[in-house]
Amino acid sequence: MSAHESTLTLRVRYSETDQMGTFYNSRALEWFECGRTDYLRSIGLPYAEMESRGVMLPVVEAHVEYLGRARYDDELRVMTTAKMAGRVRLRCDVRVEHADGRGPVARGYTVHAVTDASGTPCRPPDWLTEALDSAQESP
Amino acid sequence: MSAHESTLTLRVRYSETDQMGTFYNSRALEWFECGRTDYLRSIGLPYAEMESRGVMLPVVEAHVEYLGRARYDDELRVMTTAKMAGRVRLRCDVRVEHADGRGPVARGYTVHAVTDASGTPCRPPDWLTEALDSAQESP
Amino acid sequence: MSAHESTLTLRVRYSETDQMGTFYNSRALEWFECGRTDYLRSIGLPYAEMESRGVMLPVVEAHVEYLGRARYDDELRVMTTAKMAGRVRLRCDVRVEHADGRGPVARGYTVHAVTDASGTPCRPPDWLTEALDSAQESP
Amino acid sequence: MSAHESTLTLRVRYSETDQMGTFYNSRALEWFECGRTDYLRSIGLPYAEMESRGVMLPVVEAHVEYLGRARYDDELRVMTTAKMAGRVRLRCDVRVEHADGRGPVARGYTVHAVTDASGTPCRPPDWLTEALDSAQESP
Repeated sequence: MSAHESTLTLRVRYSETDQMGTFYNSRALEWFECGRTDYLRSIGLPYAEMESRGVMLPVVEAHVEYLGRARYDDELRVMTTAKMAGRVRLRCDVRVEHADGRGPVARGYTVHAVTDASGTPCRPPDWLTEALDSAQESP
Repeated sequence: MSAHESTLTLRVRYSETDQMGTFYNSRALEWFECGRTDYLRSIGLPYAEMESRGVMLPVVEAHVEYLGRARYDDELRVMTTAKMAGRVRLRCDVRVEHADGRGPVARGYTVHAVTDASGTPCRPPDWLTEALDSAQESP
Repeated sequence: MSAHESTLTLRVRYSETDQMGTFYNSRALEWFECGRTDYLRSIGLPYAEMESRGVMLPVVEAHVEYLGRARYDDELRVMTTAKMAGRVRLRCDVRVEHADGRGPVARGYTVHAVTDASGTPCRPPDWLTEALDSAQESP
Repeated sequence: MSAHESTLTLRVRYSETDQMGTFYNSRALEWFECGRTDYLRSIGLPYAEMESRGVMLPVVEAHVEYLGRARYDDELRVMTTAKMAGRVRLRCDVRVEHADGRGPVARGYTVHAVTDASGTPCRPPDWLTEALDSAQESP
């Protein structure tokens, strides 16, 4: 049994390149966000809905390792898992790789607080922890 | 007598370049926004304060002409004027040029609706039109 | 007979929102670029290949009208056509609308010069004008 | 004796906010880049010049801790130091805080490879390591 992982495919946009000819480093965090959005939808908790229920997941820590080049229009796969890290934090682990098998592009993680709509930290609601736990145990 | 114009200086960020080696085209609209922010502050109406008073200026139209290259770390000047365009629209005209006299980089304009905090169009408040009109008549 | 049009679907990223709660205005130009990339691929001329053949299409003019709100995670359709505008310019027309039928989000155009790899304007190569003309005449 | 630190002041742009009302998380890496640019200039090695001499510093690792909110138009200070990390890597440490004393916003670091213009890793040139070492020993 292994944890559920979501896979999103995207193409490097021209706007995401820089003059070095590959993607600009901060774009990895935007792709991690796309991966998170995709993961939460895949476990039945679209983040847009979570926010409209008054639960927000601001990033409190982020880490990226850059493993390979990716150029404009390259097709990439973003693979994401998530789980509770302690009682009040959520952690997402993300890998980005070339869709054509040319290897890894980046990997890293983000750690999230759970807050109410006003930004005040709160206990994660049960529906959130239960959905995350179920996904961890999925075959 | 000529209209008031504000001048902001900024440097091209590495994140603003693309693989063509100059700034990516959409960055011009971000610089126009920096120019607007600067202009409104210069006439005593910081936009952050306007929003906290419940007045928003969403962009309804934007136009950019690209006139010259600008590279990473080039110092640019952003020159902005603004005035009412009809009774319910605000128009900002912006020029971006090299600070060292190498010539123009971009010019264009944005047109803005005036809305309340919920996004509903509203009549521009008197303090806004009066401040804009005064700036037009400034020596 | 009508001109060929390409259709790309994308979702609004969290990174593309701003504090007004909709997409930040410059993102429209990034979506226009996604549409262009998609259009050129659809007529057999992937732009990444064009650049590797030494032909670049820098933006010289851009225009956007903002027609409706789009929020985080909304699915959008980007519809693009392109044609020569005079002998040395390419023009792309783009419409962005909600994929679920809620209506238009933005429309506009970009005008492009044709340059060689060094950025010097050049005559558009025949394979480019012919591919664009063929697409205009497609059923 | 303590290491040289550069300080850059910037304002949060509207384009850098997201619908949570503060800056979007990836912008921190763009501010780190502004800090690096500023640091390298402050020790006499403008990065634009380094690249034109054929030395590039691609990011191989990045880490950010988010410590406090910052809103549109808030004035921030970006404080940066840099040093060699082993023989072939450069490390930049960055802190971002409110200019008005309201406290920290983010801190973190980036690790950089040293490559030639083609992207091939190379030994850092002496003028680079010497300038970094001198700055470490500055009063």
